[in-house]
Amino acid sequence: MTPQAPTPAYRRLSVEERRAQLLDAALSLFAHRVPEDVSLDDVAEAAGVSRPLVYRYFPGGKQQLYEAALRSAAEELQHCFDEPREGPVKPRLARALDRYLTFVDEHDAGFSALLQGGSVVETSRTTAIVDGVRRAAAEHIFRHLGVAAPGPRLRMTVRMWITAVEAASLIWLDEEKQPPVGELRDWLVEQFVAVMTVTAARDAQTAALVAALASADG
Amino acid sequence: MTPQAPTPAYRRLSVEERRAQLLDAALSLFAHRVPEDVSLDDVAEAAGVSRPLVYRYFPGGKQQLYEAALRSAAEELQHCFDEPREGPVKPRLARALDRYLTFVDEHDAGFSALLQGGSVVETSRTTAIVDGVRRAAAEHIFRHLGVAAPGPRLRMTVRMWITAVEAASLIWLDEEKQPPVGELRDWLVEQFVAVMTVTAARDAQTAALVAALASADG
Repeated sequence: MTPQAPTPAYRRLSVEERRAQLLDAALSLFAHRVPEDVSLDDVAEAAGVSRPLVYRYFPGGKQQLYEAALRSAAEELQHCFDEPREGPVKPRLARALDRYLTFVDEHDAGFSALLQGGSVVETSRTTAIVDGVRRAAAEHIFRHLGVAAPGPRLRMTVRMWITAVEAASLIWLDEEKQPPVGELRDWLVEQFVAVMTVTAARDAQTAALVAALASADG
Repeated sequence: MTPQAPTPAYRRLSVEERRAQLLDAALSLFAHRVPEDVSLDDVAEAAGVSRPLVYRYFPGGKQQLYEAALRSAAEELQHCFDEPREGPVKPRLARALDRYLTFVDEHDAGFSALLQGGSVVETSRTTAIVDGVRRAAAEHIFRHLGVAAPGPRLRMTVRMWITAVEAASLIWLDEEKQPPVGELRDWLVEQFVAVMTVTAARDAQTAALVAALASADG
């Protein structure tokens, strides 16, 4: 192929490349519409392929494609939490939230559909995918806090804050992305410190973490 | 009927009474099992009536019965928030939380099934019922705070806290109802004050409310 040759409409892709291309197309459709409003024809058109080709890769049809797209989004979301365990903890949390909020911003309606449920294609499997992301987020936080065995009060506090962050993201999308993302991020970090401080009065493990957060200007 | 006459198995009930009896039976079944594991035969047996009678009242079958039971539970849940607007605000919040946590305690698995989703009979209608309860809870809080027009930061704070309370209830059920209910209630009230205080630094409306909460030992 010379550098000038135009890309043929049906360039031969490997199975993996084709699958990734279809998932990409599906994700960007699910990102802007609820799953009910996305058809396999839409996905085929967005990927520039035929409907039978979509079925060849996803013989389970829309449900299978939706779950695969969800899984791929969940993986992408988990990458948001990758943050070196170096330096004070609060800026690490802020950076992870920055990436998370960028994901929310980019996926928009698809993110709401994913979390809000009530979708016609929601099943216990899709719920399990979302719960997996929540669990991963909690695990990341415990690792950054340097806690190997979080006690019940600390675990409940962190899981409540994660749920509150999700709620904030959905409301933020509903309210035309106000307040600005930087303010939302700082506010969420402050809430984390505030609820941890409340728990510290009831739980020695959390108290030690809060003291460390404060002393290192964490 | 003399006072000694035994209650006949098929005592004549009014339509309303019979409907209420069937919903009661359904609610107590859904309270201890996920909807997938409840059959119409179970409901008929629990109410001591025939299966055709259940169908006469709920011709839509299990889905209709489930939604009606959900609606009835949602009404019951909203009664938890009824609290006279008198005296300091924090004890009012504590009393409402007491009633709410009693509801969670009594409905147990049914409460989890209701909120966690992923149920085979979940639809956008059942999601709307649950969202209605959340909205009602937020409205009650604004009324108790004496706020007619909550701004976006105050609204987001209250809705985040309500979501966090829901998460706490589910975790509490998962963790064999630990910590004890009184401690959980106080902890949730403290978290409310803490997140409101964080928002107060960013929002004049919330700052005025937090000052009032503190000055009246609210």
